[in-house]
Amino acid sequence: MSTTPILLTPGPLTTAEATRRAMMRDWGSRDPAFIALTAELRQRILTVANGEGTHAAVPLQGSGTFIVEAAIATLVGPADRLLVLVNGAYGERMVAIARRMGRAVEALRWPEDRAVEPGAVAEALRADPSITHVALVHCETTTGILNPLPAIAAAVAGEGRALLLDAMSSFGALEIDLSATPVTAVLASSNKCLEGVPGIGFALVRPEALERAAGASPSLSFDLHAQWKGFESDGQWRFTPPVQVVAALVEALRLLEAEGGPAARRRRYADNLATLLAGMRRLGFEPFLEEAVQAPIIATFRMPEGRPLAFRPFYDALAERGFLIYPGKLTRAETFRIGCIGALDRRDFERLLLAVAEVMAALEAA
Amino acid sequence: MSTTPILLTPGPLTTAEATRRAMMRDWGSRDPAFIALTAELRQRILTVANGEGTHAAVPLQGSGTFIVEAAIATLVGPADRLLVLVNGAYGERMVAIARRMGRAVEALRWPEDRAVEPGAVAEALRADPSITHVALVHCETTTGILNPLPAIAAAVAGEGRALLLDAMSSFGALEIDLSATPVTAVLASSNKCLEGVPGIGFALVRPEALERAAGASPSLSFDLHAQWKGFESDGQWRFTPPVQVVAALVEALRLLEAEGGPAARRRRYADNLATLLAGMRRLGFEPFLEEAVQAPIIATFRMPEGRPLAFRPFYDALAERGFLIYPGKLTRAETFRIGCIGALDRRDFERLLLAVAEVMAALEAA
Ligand SMILES: Cc1ncc(COP(=O)(O)O)c(C=O)c1O
Ligand SMILES: Cc1ncc(COP(=O)(O)O)c(C=O)c1O
Repeated sequence: MSTTPILLTPGPLTTAEATRRAMMRDWGSRDPAFIALTAELRQRILTVANGEGTHAAVPLQGSGTFIVEAAIATLVGPADRLLVLVNGAYGERMVAIARRMGRAVEALRWPEDRAVEPGAVAEALRADPSITHVALVHCETTTGILNPLPAIAAAVAGEGRALLLDAMSSFGALEIDLSATPVTAVLASSNKCLEGVPGIGFALVRPEALERAAGASPSLSFDLHAQWKGFESDGQWRFTPPVQVVAALVEALRLLEAEGGPAARRRRYADNLATLLAGMRRLGFEPFLEEAVQAPIIATFRMPEGRPLAFRPFYDALAERGFLIYPGKLTRAETFRIGCIGALDRRDFERLLLAVAEVMAALEAA
Repeated sequence: MSTTPILLTPGPLTTAEATRRAMMRDWGSRDPAFIALTAELRQRILTVANGEGTHAAVPLQGSGTFIVEAAIATLVGPADRLLVLVNGAYGERMVAIARRMGRAVEALRWPEDRAVEPGAVAEALRADPSITHVALVHCETTTGILNPLPAIAAAVAGEGRALLLDAMSSFGALEIDLSATPVTAVLASSNKCLEGVPGIGFALVRPEALERAAGASPSLSFDLHAQWKGFESDGQWRFTPPVQVVAALVEALRLLEAEGGPAARRRRYADNLATLLAGMRRLGFEPFLEEAVQAPIIATFRMPEGRPLAFRPFYDALAERGFLIYPGKLTRAETFRIGCIGALDRRDFERLLLAVAEVMAALEAA
């Protein structure tokens, strides 16, 4: 087997060896030892967002999209109306999920390089009292843009609506303080800033919202009320959990605590981003976003102007040197992305920059 | 960390060390190396069921229940009618899934210790031409009973209806020959007879059935047509795959081939079962099922009559000795279950039987 490459991707990403090693045993999913592991998981994800007093942790098998769909299925009823704040592909995906499910949904859109504006949100809500729920993507991984959560949450709560937050690519690194910020449900997954391996998502939800949603989901699997009641009744998952993924995530959460929690992790990622942006600029790559709205999660770069650099040979040459970058996801402009998250620090980015310089020289000479 | 116990459960189960070791690296989910791994996975699961010429392999993130729900959501339309053949909890679950989704569904039921009868199925279908789809659980893990797939499939096909087969606890060990047996969709998961770790399910579906189902699912995540088209277009998963779980499953599939395929695996499991049944009978435990309908997957035992053996102390004492057994799932009768599947052979069951004898002596002396 070849050695593990360095993943500069928004997840799956580079994990710590201890996290992967936690997968080297088998667990009985109904055994007390695994029930204790699940309890630790639920406790730790609440702690990350300061939600112990106010929210319930509901992990769910599958990818991040599944937990987003489960939250909409469980919390947005047939008589409700969802407004999605969209400035990228993951906002659009929430619109598509709700539409497929037959829920009333509309979108308020911004260009991909512009943050969601709290004032416009408040205005839209005042103009349409039939809107019951608002959905926001905290960090739009499409570009790496950060949406201003506290101001948007205040606007939504001020108008008395419920906020669903897709924090997939921010949870664990960008501050989410549920004791201070009004959010009905926060949705995230194991394999981004928590630095676990992929395979589970989770929701932190106000218990009042869950209580109201008994039997409401049109999907047995995507029923967060039933999933929650399962955990509360006997500590077990309703359906077979990916036990190794759970064990890896618990280990990753212990490592997050040892690092100093989300604030320390954010500092490491910000250092990664600063190293990356400065180095890439020197090499002629312009970041797509203005620095004021750039989250320290993933950066989008334009292909250098007037230079014959196609993504595929660039990707392949970097991959040969052990670095995996990520394609762009923009609706316009030829771009690529480099993640700042994962078990990586500034030195990894310094090595990456050397590899990029080498590859550019080689591709231009060819 | 404590040593891995021996899991005598229907999955998650005891895996081979090589399978777990395959999780020790990170994979970029859009990298050519992982695309190749996904292609190998899809190819190998088709081969297990001899479905290369007739079926398409569609893996899906999450637990086994998710792939069952996705198959119903994708293949059973709003104008269709589903008949579920029920002799255990997993049949009942399919009824519950379809009902939640708002699909027309009914059940034909047998007692938990009786196999589904092909003649009764044919009769029910002749009596109700509005039934378009029939769902069957191959091995009902509730008890371990084997339902006679070839005869039921012939009855369903004879009446011109489509068969959905929940082969969760049989796939990889009990023969499913898609070139000879008419089945529209076979559903299974990574963590039972394939001996992978939990985290993905998969469907083997006739492409004609998928083609007809474009946009039909009420769920974006549980849309097997879109999932299939994703694999077919660029070899990638639509949403983030659990890369380590995929790598473990591919390794487990290579081990299955090395063992000699499903026929060899069935022989090992049958040997495990024979050792278990003979030994448990000697110790006074009566199997719940008659041997004619018992699959070599999991056995249900009644608590010995007139003896004060409660499940919990029995479980705990065996767990202390490194063996995890499984609770019963029957609607009546006090029982427990012991799985015969996983990376285990006759010697593990001989050791288990010694431990059971020891534990019974200790519990009765106490
Ligand atoms: C903001 C955001 N939402 C949702 C998702 C979907 O997660 P998944 O790919 O695990 O389904 C992602 C994945 O990158 C994401 O970044
Ligand atoms: C026959 C059968 N169907 C469905 C399932 C559900 O699978 P999961 O627990 O992975 O959701 C199981 C699990 O044991 C099963 O044995």
